[in-house]
Amino acid sequence: MHRTHTCGELSIADLGKSVTLSGWVQKSRDLGGMTFVDVRDRYGITQLTFNAEDDAQLRSQATSLGREFVIKVQGTVIERSSKNLKIPTGEIEIKVSSLEILNAAKLPPFLIEDETDGGDDIRMKYRYLDLRRNPVRENLILRHKVGQEIRKYMDAQNFLEVETPVLIKSTPEGARDFVVPSRMNPGEFYALPQSPQTFKQLLMVSGFDRYFQIVKCFRDEDLRADRQPEFTQVDCEMAFVEQEDILNMFEGLAKHIFKTIKDIDLGTVPRMTYADAMRLYGSDKPDTRFDMQFVELNELTKGKGFPVFDAAELVVGINVSGCAHYTRKQLDALTDYIKRPQIGATGMVYARYNEDSTIKSSVDKFYSPEDLTAIAQAFDAKPGDLLLLLSGNTDKVRKQLNELRLEVANQLGLRDKNKFSPLWVIDFPLLEWDEDGERFHAMHHPFTSPKPEDIALLDSKPGEVRANAYDLVINGTEIGGGSIRIHDRDLQSLMFKHLGFTPEQAEAQFGFLMEAFTYGAPPHGGLAFGFDRLVSILAGLDTIRDVIAFPKNNSGRDVMIDAPSTIDQVQLDELSLDVRLRTK
Amino acid sequence: MHRTHTCGELSIADLGKSVTLSGWVQKSRDLGGMTFVDVRDRYGITQLTFNAEDDAQLRSQATSLGREFVIKVQGTVIERSSKNLKIPTGEIEIKVSSLEILNAAKLPPFLIEDETDGGDDIRMKYRYLDLRRNPVRENLILRHKVGQEIRKYMDAQNFLEVETPVLIKSTPEGARDFVVPSRMNPGEFYALPQSPQTFKQLLMVSGFDRYFQIVKCFRDEDLRADRQPEFTQVDCEMAFVEQEDILNMFEGLAKHIFKTIKDIDLGTVPRMTYADAMRLYGSDKPDTRFDMQFVELNELTKGKGFPVFDAAELVVGINVSGCAHYTRKQLDALTDYIKRPQIGATGMVYARYNEDSTIKSSVDKFYSPEDLTAIAQAFDAKPGDLLLLLSGNTDKVRKQLNELRLEVANQLGLRDKNKFSPLWVIDFPLLEWDEDGERFHAMHHPFTSPKPEDIALLDSKPGEVRANAYDLVINGTEIGGGSIRIHDRDLQSLMFKHLGFTPEQAEAQFGFLMEAFTYGAPPHGGLAFGFDRLVSILAGLDTIRDVIAFPKNNSGRDVMIDAPSTIDQVQLDELSLDVRLRTK
Repeated sequence: MHRTHTCGELSIADLGKSVTLSGWVQKSRDLGGMTFVDVRDRYGITQLTFNAEDDAQLRSQATSLGREFVIKVQGTVIERSSKNLKIPTGEIEIKVSSLEILNAAKLPPFLIEDETDGGDDIRMKYRYLDLRRNPVRENLILRHKVGQEIRKYMDAQNFLEVETPVLIKSTPEGARDFVVPSRMNPGEFYALPQSPQTFKQLLMVSGFDRYFQIVKCFRDEDLRADRQPEFTQVDCEMAFVEQEDILNMFEGLAKHIFKTIKDIDLGTVPRMTYADAMRLYGSDKPDTRFDMQFVELNELTKGKGFPVFDAAELVVGINVSGCAHYTRKQLDALTDYIKRPQIGATGMVYARYNEDSTIKSSVDKFYSPEDLTAIAQAFDAKPGDLLLLLSGNTDKVRKQLNELRLEVANQLGLRDKNKFSPLWVIDFPLLEWDEDGERFHAMHHPFTSPKPEDIALLDSKPGEVRANAYDLVINGTEIGGGSIRIHDRDLQSLMFKHLGFTPEQAEAQFGFLMEAFTYGAPPHGGLAFGFDRLVSILAGLDTIRDVIAFPKNNSGRDVMIDAPSTIDQVQLDELSLDVRLRTK
Repeated sequence: MHRTHTCGELSIADLGKSVTLSGWVQKSRDLGGMTFVDVRDRYGITQLTFNAEDDAQLRSQATSLGREFVIKVQGTVIERSSKNLKIPTGEIEIKVSSLEILNAAKLPPFLIEDETDGGDDIRMKYRYLDLRRNPVRENLILRHKVGQEIRKYMDAQNFLEVETPVLIKSTPEGARDFVVPSRMNPGEFYALPQSPQTFKQLLMVSGFDRYFQIVKCFRDEDLRADRQPEFTQVDCEMAFVEQEDILNMFEGLAKHIFKTIKDIDLGTVPRMTYADAMRLYGSDKPDTRFDMQFVELNELTKGKGFPVFDAAELVVGINVSGCAHYTRKQLDALTDYIKRPQIGATGMVYARYNEDSTIKSSVDKFYSPEDLTAIAQAFDAKPGDLLLLLSGNTDKVRKQLNELRLEVANQLGLRDKNKFSPLWVIDFPLLEWDEDGERFHAMHHPFTSPKPEDIALLDSKPGEVRANAYDLVINGTEIGGGSIRIHDRDLQSLMFKHLGFTPEQAEAQFGFLMEAFTYGAPPHGGLAFGFDRLVSILAGLDTIRDVIAFPKNNSGRDVMIDAPSTIDQVQLDELSLDVRLRTK
C-alpha cells in the first residue's frame, strides 16, 4: 500500500498512529542531528523527521533527497515542538521509520512554489510541473467544483445532458471553422463545432425540452491574449419558454454557483436594455461594480463658442467622485491613455469642482461659471468631484469614454475582484452593419428571433430591429449570452435573405434545420455560458489560460507536446491531400 | 406562459384545476360530438377533450389538428369516464377552453410511436423525429442519468474532472488519427485524441492523483456495424496505487451505477486471468451469464485412430446441458454456423448423452462406449446432455468454440438482457505478435507496465511477459480496460525499443512524457470505460448507435446534416492544402 493517509489530513487527533505517506519532497533542511523533510501531495504538506541518534543510516538517506523526489515513508505521528499553525498539519510531524524513493527527480527548471521564478514560456513547456503549484492546481479544482455544481443544478431542474457531435459540417457563417479531412469520403471535410447551436435546436424539435451540455467548442481565429482555439461552453436550451423563463432559470444557475462555490448571495440580477447600456456605459458589457454612469451634455455645451463641442455629435462625460485633487500630470496621463491608437480619442476636457465650490475647467475660456455649474448639476456633482468630458461621433466617443471610465476605476481600485456585480443586458439589436462586407450580420447568430413587434421593421429599418437576445454580464465581462430562436421556416428563410444568403445557399447549409421546423417545432430559446470565463471570474483571474489544464499559446501551439506538427505522406495520401505552402 | 404543467404529471389529485399544457399532437379521434386529442411531451401524454355542445368552433378547430402539430391548450382537469390505468395521467382528461396552434406540422415520414414503420435510413435522415419516439428518448435519458451517477461517485471519491485538449499531436502508434490542419502553422496538423492517455499520465506527474473525465475520443477506422468515429470514454487515472486499488475503486463505480440506475446489486466481481479466460471460454471477454466452460480433451481423444483429433493441437468441447434431444438438422445448422468464413471451423463432433445413459456420437467409429463415457465424465455430463467438440490449432479452435458457445446460448435463451454478469479479466499479455508487421505490438498500449516479476523475460520471451492490465467485462462485452503504467524513463525507453521504435522516433513522439518521468513521476495506473457501450448494456441494446443522439452511419456520414462535405477553395488556401484524389 502506498499510503494510509494523504499529506493534508493528519492532525493532533492522530498522535501515536502508524501511518504511511507518499508524495513529493517540497524541501528539506538539516538541524543538529536531525533532518526535516516536507512531503507534499494534492492535499497538503506534512513534516517528516529523521534523527541520526535513532537511525543514522535512515537519516543519511533522507539527506540525499532532492526537491521533487517521489517518496514513500512509514512512521509515527508525533507532536511538533515548534508548531506551524498556518497549515492544517502544522501541529504534528512524522517520526519516520522507513523511507523508500519511488522515483528520483531532476531539479525542476523553476521553483514549485506559490510564487515561482519561472517565466511564461518555460512554464508552458513544463506545464505538468507548473500544475504542481498550489495556485494553478486550485484553479483546476475550482473548475471541477463549478462543473459539478452546474450539473447538479441542471439535473435538479430536469435538464438532460445530451452529447452532440464533434464531427459536423462546415458553414461559412460565423467565425472560421477548424476542419477535419474525411478519409472515407475523399475530398470532403468535417468541421469542428463553434457551438452545438443547430443540434440543440433539433433536440428542441425532438421534444427534449430542457437540454444542456458542458462541451468543447472550436474557433480558428487569430488568437488574442485571452482566446483559445478550443474552449468550453455550458450550452443550454429550453422549449415552451419565453425570454422571462430563460432569464429566471439561468439567473438561478448563476446564484446557485456563487452561493455554493463562493458563499455569496448574488441577489436579483438587474436588467438593462442594450440601448441603455450603450448610453450609460458605452458598452454592452458594463462593469457595474461601480457607478460613474455617462451623462450626455450636448444641450448644456452647445452654442457657447467651443467649436469642438459644437461640432460633436455627442458630448458626454463621467463624474469621478472625490478626485478634484487630481494633478495636471495625472490628468495628462489620462489624456495620453485615451489618445493611444487602440482607443483613438483626440482630447479630453476636465472640470474640477473644488472644495470651495468654484469650478475650474480646461474650457473656462468658453464656459461661464454658471455654465459650468449647470454642467456639474447634470452630474449631481459635489465639491471635490472631477468631471471628465469627451466629444465626437456617438459610437466612437462612447467606446472611448468606456475605456476612460474603466481606466479611472482601475486607478481608484474600484474593480475589486472579490466583489461581483451581475447584470442582464437585454433587447440586443438583431442585426449589425458590417462596413467591410457592406451587409448586415446577425449580431448573435442567424437563428435569433426578432422581437415580434419589430418584425415589420425588417425591410424598412433592419438596423433598428431588436431581438429577444440577452447577455449575462458580471464585472464587465460577458459570461453568457443567448436568445429566443426562430422556430418557423418562413421567418428563418427571411432572416437568411436579410443576411445575404441566396435561397440555394440557405438550403445547402441549413436546409436540415429549416425542414425540421416544418415537422412541428416548439417555441424555444437558450443560452451558453463561457465556462472558462466563468471559472476565471470566480477565481479572480484576468485570463482564461490559467483555468485550462493544457492551454495553447498565442500561435495556437501546445509547446509541451509540440503540436501541431507535420504528418507523413502516407497520412496525406490516405486523406487525398497535398500540402502546398502559399506565399503570402 | 406556455405551460403550467407537463403532459406527464396531472392526476386525479388535480381535479378541477385550471391548467395550461403544451406539446405535440400524438393522435386524435372523433366520437359522437366529442373530439379526443392526445397531447405528448417528454414527460408523458394527456388526453384533451373538445365537446361540440360546449363550443362548436373550438371543437372544429380541434378536428383540424394533424399528427405532430405543436399546440398549447388551457382547460380544466376532469375525471375520465373511461380510464386508462396503464399511464400515469390515465384517470384524468382536460376539458379544453382554448386552443392555440404554436406550429403546424407536415405528416412525418414515419410513425412517431414505440414501434415505428420507418427503416434505418429514413430514421437516420430524420433523426430529430426518431428522437421523439419513447424508446429512443429513454435511451438518452438513461445516458444522462448514468453520466450524473458516474460524476457523483467520482466526486465523492475525490476524483477531479479535468478537461484535456482535443487538438493534440498525431502519433503513428495505435489506430489511425483524425487530423486537423493548422492555419496558423501552415503545413502542420493537430490530431484528435484517440484517448487522453498521455495527458492523464502527465496529470499524475502533476500530482493530481485522482483524475477522471467523460470525454469524446476519435478513431479514423473503417467502421464496423457497431463502431463510431467519435465515441465517449469515462477516462480515469490514479496515482500512488497498485492494481488492487484500481480494481476495487472501479468495481465500486460499477456497483454504484447498477445500484442507482437499475437497482441491481452487482455483488463482488469475480476475477479471472487472461490465460484462464482463453482456456475456459476461448475469449478475453467471456459471457459468464451462463456456464458452459470449455473442457480440453487431448488426453482422452488421442491415439484412438481418429486422425483429425490426433493431428489437432487442441481438442476442446462444451457441454450443452439438457440438449441431447437436438435433431440432426439442428446439429447440422450449428455445423454450418461455425463453418461460415468469418468463423472458419472445418467441422464439429457431437456426442449425445442419452437419457438411457448410452452415448451416441458422430465419431463412434473411433471411440468405444468406455472412451465416450470418459469424455462425458470430463464434462461432468449427465444423461440428456449434448457434447460439442472442435479441434485444430489452439488459438483458432478456441475462437471457433467461443462462437459456437455463444450461438448455442443464444438459441437456448441463456443471454438474458436483464441479467448482468461482470468479470475482471486480469494479467493480460504485455505484447502481442503482429503477423503482418512482423513485430510485437502493445496489447493495451505502449505505456502499460510489465509485471515486475516478468521484466526479465522481455528479451528472451517477450510474448510471455504479463502486464498489470485488466478489463472489466459484463455479459461478454468489454466495458472498460486499463493498466498500471510505466513511470520510469528507462523502462519506457525499453518498451519503445521492444515495440520497434528507434530512440529518435520515441523521442520525437513521446519525448515530453519520458522527460516528465524524470521530474518525479509517481506510480500510477487507471482505466477507461466505454461510455456508449456501458449505457447500451444498461439499456439492453445490441448497438451503441441507439444511445448516441446523432450517430454517423457506416460510411462515417451524418446523413441528417449531410457531413462531411466539400469546403471552398478559400478555406483550402488558408490551410495551405490541395485536394488531390488518388486512384486506388
